[in-house]
Amino acid sequence: MSPPKIREGNVRGYIVPVGGAEQKQRDGRILERFVALCGGKNAMVAVLPTASRLRDTGERYVKLFEEIGVKSAVSLDFDERADAFDAGKLAELEQATGIFMTGGNQLRLSTILGGTDVARVIRRRNAEGVHVAGTSAGAGFISEHMIAFGQVGATPLAGMVTLAPGLGLTNRIVVDQHFRQRDRLGRLLAAVSYNPFVVGLGLDEDTAAFMAPDQVIEVVGSGAITVVDGAGLEYSSISFVRPGEPVCITGIKLHVLVEGAKFDLHARKAIPIADAKDSGDDA
Amino acid sequence: MSPPKIREGNVRGYIVPVGGAEQKQRDGRILERFVALCGGKNAMVAVLPTASRLRDTGERYVKLFEEIGVKSAVSLDFDERADAFDAGKLAELEQATGIFMTGGNQLRLSTILGGTDVARVIRRRNAEGVHVAGTSAGAGFISEHMIAFGQVGATPLAGMVTLAPGLGLTNRIVVDQHFRQRDRLGRLLAAVSYNPFVVGLGLDEDTAAFMAPDQVIEVVGSGAITVVDGAGLEYSSISFVRPGEPVCITGIKLHVLVEGAKFDLHARKAIPIADAKDSGDDA
Repeated sequence: MSPPKIREGNVRGYIVPVGGAEQKQRDGRILERFVALCGGKNAMVAVLPTASRLRDTGERYVKLFEEIGVKSAVSLDFDERADAFDAGKLAELEQATGIFMTGGNQLRLSTILGGTDVARVIRRRNAEGVHVAGTSAGAGFISEHMIAFGQVGATPLAGMVTLAPGLGLTNRIVVDQHFRQRDRLGRLLAAVSYNPFVVGLGLDEDTAAFMAPDQVIEVVGSGAITVVDGAGLEYSSISFVRPGEPVCITGIKLHVLVEGAKFDLHARKAIPIADAKDSGDDA
Repeated sequence: MSPPKIREGNVRGYIVPVGGAEQKQRDGRILERFVALCGGKNAMVAVLPTASRLRDTGERYVKLFEEIGVKSAVSLDFDERADAFDAGKLAELEQATGIFMTGGNQLRLSTILGGTDVARVIRRRNAEGVHVAGTSAGAGFISEHMIAFGQVGATPLAGMVTLAPGLGLTNRIVVDQHFRQRDRLGRLLAAVSYNPFVVGLGLDEDTAAFMAPDQVIEVVGSGAITVVDGAGLEYSSISFVRPGEPVCITGIKLHVLVEGAKFDLHARKAIPIADAKDSGDDA
């Protein structure tokens, strides 16, 4: 789906894909930053554990958000498509100032929520200013083009990545998660080479892209975001190589960004961390 | 060491780093191409198994070269520094039209051959037109700046790669091998970010860079070469981040090249495979 239309006078909420494992970190910087966006002590967070098959995933996040300090946190258990039309749960979603999708399997998210009232409400509310975050599978699902699954490896092979329609809050990015930890450059390159309009974001674990309404992404967390920008693509053989064969791609621009650095999706420009952080010359 | 000086009227030989595992492939395209360069049926190949601790490494390659069809192939067993001054072995090296260094541990090559007559002879003979190839550890050792060891992972961490002086046939490239198979983009990015003068070459297994005297590299083999070009580097935090922390780098250019594609190290330009290979539109 295309990104939801934003009505005049409205500003869409932040879109926050997270690379996974953010809850395992002691400092919890990413979740704290998300809560601050959503109103801090007045935040009302709805957790969607749909991607996960573990019974306690939603409740674990509810506890994490309560520990940070919010007005309310609730786990909305959309476990099959019929749940996604439940009026009571939808009412809770309408109250939320922030929506958080957990990890698991992104195909559970797309097959259970795709085309339901839940998807419609999240899209509308994000367009109205509500912030939406997703971690791991939840991060992959956020954008219009979602990496459904793929093979590992640093260089792209034809057919190594399978895209599927996602929630579509934005169509500017394709997200891959656990990036450093699971060796996924090849499949992200393959995804971008299909159509270099999209920018590939490879999110390390415990690392998030806070994508502001002005399309500028800020990096938060302990890892890095690898930005794969195909706008300058000179050549790609992906239209004719056979499955399993390596793909020839030239002219990709690559940025590795750490906390504090930004990327402007509109200008396609990396804004590195301030040189002020430099501790100076060795004397 | 700096690349050896080439006397007027001479043309240096090819420099051929190989990503490893080329001997396991049935078609042996890379070794055949190397033999053709070295004179085909008149080729005299000297194999240096110094990197390997396995007794039969040299003899296995001698057999492979004999099967392809050469005038002679001989394994020169420089196993400790004293061997590297052996007049008889050096005389054989002086006869060779091609020199091939096997895989193993690149630090064995640099610690045993560095600063010896063997290193001097290889450097001089390459400058005179003799072709030099190395696979895996042998590939890493070829250039002036050699990746001695490092950590795996797709994004660069400060201190994750340790460089050491290599044989120095060229100073234009830093080579990493088993690239796709061992998840080494991070350490190659870290190596290039120290000084973007060098171009990083990530060689997949069964894939070679045939580096011609005019500094144009041609890809041969079944995998890909990932070219990491830092010439357009906009920002790098590597001068001040602490060991283990992710490095912020912007403006890296990336090319993934497959067989037939070229990269001009002088112009820093990728030349993709001919569009002629395109099988045409679907009708």
